[in-house]
Amino acid sequence: MRGLTLPSTSLLIHHHQSYIATAFVSLRRHVTLQNVLRSGRSGSLSAPPPDRSNGALKIDVNPPKGTRDFPPEDMRLRNWLFQNFREVSQLYGFEEVDFPVLESEALYIRKAGEEIKDQLYCFEDRGNRRVALRPELTPSLARLVIQKGKSVPLPIKWFTIGQCWRYERMTRGRRREHYQWNMDTVGVPEITAEAELISAIVTFFKRIGITSSDVGFKISSRKVLQEVLRCYSVPENMFGKVCVAIDKLEKIPIDDIKEELRSAELSEEASEELLQVLSVKSLDKLEDKLGAAGEAVTDLKRLFSLAEEYGYSEWIQFDASVVRGLAYYTGIVFEGFDRGGKLRAICGGGRYDRLLSTFGGDDIPACGFGFGDAVIVELLKDKGLIPELTHQVENIVCSLDKDLQQAAAAVANILRGKGQSVDLVLEYKPLKWVFKRASRVNARRLILVGDAEWQKGMVGVKVLSSGEQFEVKIDELE
Amino acid sequence: MRGLTLPSTSLLIHHHQSYIATAFVSLRRHVTLQNVLRSGRSGSLSAPPPDRSNGALKIDVNPPKGTRDFPPEDMRLRNWLFQNFREVSQLYGFEEVDFPVLESEALYIRKAGEEIKDQLYCFEDRGNRRVALRPELTPSLARLVIQKGKSVPLPIKWFTIGQCWRYERMTRGRRREHYQWNMDTVGVPEITAEAELISAIVTFFKRIGITSSDVGFKISSRKVLQEVLRCYSVPENMFGKVCVAIDKLEKIPIDDIKEELRSAELSEEASEELLQVLSVKSLDKLEDKLGAAGEAVTDLKRLFSLAEEYGYSEWIQFDASVVRGLAYYTGIVFEGFDRGGKLRAICGGGRYDRLLSTFGGDDIPACGFGFGDAVIVELLKDKGLIPELTHQVENIVCSLDKDLQQAAAAVANILRGKGQSVDLVLEYKPLKWVFKRASRVNARRLILVGDAEWQKGMVGVKVLSSGEQFEVKIDELE
Repeated sequence: MRGLTLPSTSLLIHHHQSYIATAFVSLRRHVTLQNVLRSGRSGSLSAPPPDRSNGALKIDVNPPKGTRDFPPEDMRLRNWLFQNFREVSQLYGFEEVDFPVLESEALYIRKAGEEIKDQLYCFEDRGNRRVALRPELTPSLARLVIQKGKSVPLPIKWFTIGQCWRYERMTRGRRREHYQWNMDTVGVPEITAEAELISAIVTFFKRIGITSSDVGFKISSRKVLQEVLRCYSVPENMFGKVCVAIDKLEKIPIDDIKEELRSAELSEEASEELLQVLSVKSLDKLEDKLGAAGEAVTDLKRLFSLAEEYGYSEWIQFDASVVRGLAYYTGIVFEGFDRGGKLRAICGGGRYDRLLSTFGGDDIPACGFGFGDAVIVELLKDKGLIPELTHQVENIVCSLDKDLQQAAAAVANILRGKGQSVDLVLEYKPLKWVFKRASRVNARRLILVGDAEWQKGMVGVKVLSSGEQFEVKIDELE
Repeated sequence: MRGLTLPSTSLLIHHHQSYIATAFVSLRRHVTLQNVLRSGRSGSLSAPPPDRSNGALKIDVNPPKGTRDFPPEDMRLRNWLFQNFREVSQLYGFEEVDFPVLESEALYIRKAGEEIKDQLYCFEDRGNRRVALRPELTPSLARLVIQKGKSVPLPIKWFTIGQCWRYERMTRGRRREHYQWNMDTVGVPEITAEAELISAIVTFFKRIGITSSDVGFKISSRKVLQEVLRCYSVPENMFGKVCVAIDKLEKIPIDDIKEELRSAELSEEASEELLQVLSVKSLDKLEDKLGAAGEAVTDLKRLFSLAEEYGYSEWIQFDASVVRGLAYYTGIVFEGFDRGGKLRAICGGGRYDRLLSTFGGDDIPACGFGFGDAVIVELLKDKGLIPELTHQVENIVCSLDKDLQQAAAAVANILRGKGQSVDLVLEYKPLKWVFKRASRVNARRLILVGDAEWQKGMVGVKVLSSGEQFEVKIDELE
């Protein structure tokens, strides 16, 4: 969650295949019962500690390139984020689902074409099957919808929070995995479905302190693209190339895009015209160009009108240049962006009414979005909105005497039985150490088990915020 | 979570590599703007629907072999289970962490030796690195502990709930992935740490309705094994073979184990003696055999005495045959089992004081356990303890008029703003359909937006449990 700054470590040394072989040989050589007994342990099944005489420690203590560990502080942030994803989804009546992180490669290749295929984190498994770590969640959802068939009444409203992977050259701030929150509605052809999804994202933003001056949504429809190209008589066989070029708008210099359009055999004039239409940022102007009768304008007007009822008009704007990179969108597409202009898209989605038939199912109208865990955290940092999340326990319980360790365990047991969290001090430690520990775990109370009190069936309680101190009968501990 | 019964489907057909190539060719061939426009959509980046004329649909709608989808009903059970894991861990003052599901293969090969290596779900990635889907969580935890070094004060008390993978021949009831709950204490050499872990598992069992007549823990120490072998003068170089044989006790017929011991060059006598000692099920008898002075008996007595203070004595029993399959245990080992004798081990763990040095770190005493999500669900089913978990929303909101769809959205918005979950009916549907939907999503109330009421700024409310019906002002909706 904290970008790509890998922690430095003195143990970071690349692992060599050959070392493994060496380790095995040395494992076999060293495993004699005498060695084991001499060392005072029965760990003979373990490899021996690495031979430090050659000066090389071979394990890389960092997670694989482009992946993250989640130590407690990062895990708290992740849980906080996921909890907000979850609560918003449930507020909208969506049910949680999940799919395997490892899927058949065919699920992505069939649909996505070669550009995404290049970033697919794919393998051949030991049974020679082509598999991939999922790059996104929607194809799995479509697969499950087809599998469930008529057993699930429509509309389906499902959400997922799952890890997705891509294999690409590592550049600054790009990772190979991220978690994605998806919400999908299957079985609703009307634009109310898209309006509802955007409303959910807005609700999420508001909950975590993001406002419409921080973030907006660019909204278009693939139907605009279709009608625009029709208007400007772009040669049909160039449609694919034109789409690829358009998806790069605002990502690469305009001259490069023009170059790509030229190579797609667009005349200078056609290219200029096209770019002008794509730069349209108001629905009225779009209506001037396309007329009011087409589906593109009708759909978009309906969405903007619904947005008013929902009360999120100030979050959204029409932008004809939005195409989205995924192949399967057929109607409304949208993209959440930071108004500061510094970050990549925060989230994106749209309508995909034809995805199921590409998998062999009957088509059902559907729409959804993906919302990653990376860019939003960068935005929260920029805005100073990362919440302070600390580890907390209600009690730290410790014995004042070596012989009272068991009594302390009993006290911890009683408190836990009453639903109170307890960090039990598991060894005899000086009080100074215990206070330091209490402060580190943010304990509310310190429970001291001392001999004199214990004889009376009592323990000492110290409320750490106030310093208040008293004795209490063990069965009266609350 | 529901075992291996894969849903049957008429679409289950294996995917052939050659089909992908065909799909690509046909993709290119079909992408003309005319096709696209004629079909009324701009989805030209998608592969066309598969050609049904050859009678073959090529997508397998099941998840990959040995893996699971989690449709809503299974996800609810998974969330319930995980929530219990989480709450118990927090009750014991443990902090949540996580690691990548994909790790360097070296992390497992160095430690585990060839037997586990055979089940490793490993690959070569696109950068020719050997990687593996993690088979267990402890090596990642050890890696992170070394990486964090002195920045994290000891003791560390961490828990994880993560997916683990193994690649093995599929047999009945065996899957290739499962989720595992781990709790680990790092930095405590005393047996109090093990006692605390077992207490946590007992607390978990009690919460979900499992009693000590359903489940028990077999407890031993690897130090027993070490001392037993020493007593019976088993040749040192046979230690490994003997361990492998012992770990199979109660899993394969006793004659096969004797055969393995014979092949480990144990005399018939030594073998009989060994098996007798391993069949010892009481600490007193063990003390008769080994004497009271050794660490094995001392550690075990301490654990049983702590169990009394915690109040879980009736859950645990000494059993010298417990060795556990993982290589790195050095002291106490334990295994949760169903007293019905039908299921595999429910959970297992122990002390691993020497794991860190096998990764190049300084050793720190540690212990932990792993608790899978598969066997426990089988047990809960057997006992009729699977909770009834239904999808629920507080309100279903629907308009009685096509033109009032936007008003219904506004009403949903108001309710959600007050923290109430709403399933909004996104299309105009007959009331019969709406009632069916309301019952399926377990809505508590039905909110009807009708023209006459809307004019007065009101909506109709029907409490679905009682049938009570009334009108209420929109801003007074609670």
